[in-house]
Amino acid sequence: MTFELDTRLQRDCLAVGRFALCRVLLMNDANFPWFVLVPQRAQVREIHQLKGPDRLQLMTESCAFAIAMERAYAPDKLNVAALGNVVQQLHLHHIARYHDDPAWPAPVWGAVPPRPYTDAERAGRLARLRGALTGEFDWDADP
Amino acid sequence: MTFELDTRLQRDCLAVGRFALCRVLLMNDANFPWFVLVPQRAQVREIHQLKGPDRLQLMTESCAFAIAMERAYAPDKLNVAALGNVVQQLHLHHIARYHDDPAWPAPVWGAVPPRPYTDAERAGRLARLRGALTGEFDWDADP
Repeated sequence: MTFELDTRLQRDCLAVGRFALCRVLLMNDANFPWFVLVPQRAQVREIHQLKGPDRLQLMTESCAFAIAMERAYAPDKLNVAALGNVVQQLHLHHIARYHDDPAWPAPVWGAVPPRPYTDAERAGRLARLRGALTGEFDWDADP
Repeated sequence: MTFELDTRLQRDCLAVGRFALCRVLLMNDANFPWFVLVPQRAQVREIHQLKGPDRLQLMTESCAFAIAMERAYAPDKLNVAALGNVVQQLHLHHIARYHDDPAWPAPVWGAVPPRPYTDAERAGRLARLRGALTGEFDWDADP
């Protein structure tokens, strides 16, 4: 069974690039710097369903991405979460949070209506990440 | 600087036991089988602030605990999340979710008022976990 990105994630997110294990998506909601890491493994719903080496790789990629997000966006806090109550395919949210963001201190899910990016906003958000994310990462395209 | 459990976590949770790295707490809310893993490291707010070996140990303990929760509670989904917008000390929520739980499919935080455990409910919940959690885990006391 080959990996295919969940259709709901395709609809709600914009492609950013990929690590060795995870595809990285930008949630199409300009309210927050909000990314989703999706391990490219078929039929996995929970982190513990990944094989041992994939679990460690997920931790490595999640931390590398979190560090880049801190550099790029200087958040007050990061939220890292695997929920999956709606989208079954395993995916790990990485969200930069601020004391003055529209949902603080509540979680972001369902808090405020999503605000789709303009092209310029999206380019600006990804340009900052591009300057911060070093190492093994393949960008899908120029933002 | 030695590790001390955050006072808010002490107030909101019940002690369960500990892995090599993490203390394990039961959120005092009988609405959900809801546990919190707290790495016993001082002044750490984000997962990526843990040193490399601690990151891998956190993944190992989180997965071992998630597998035990599946055995004990047969959830429809697990939610695993490091948010920390209110409590600064790094802590990793592990929540067993069901299609008919009082918050489904929304996240649990703030969804419904907490319902503190009775002694019997707490004992029952922990007894099921005790039967499922094997390996390196030190229970604090008999439930």
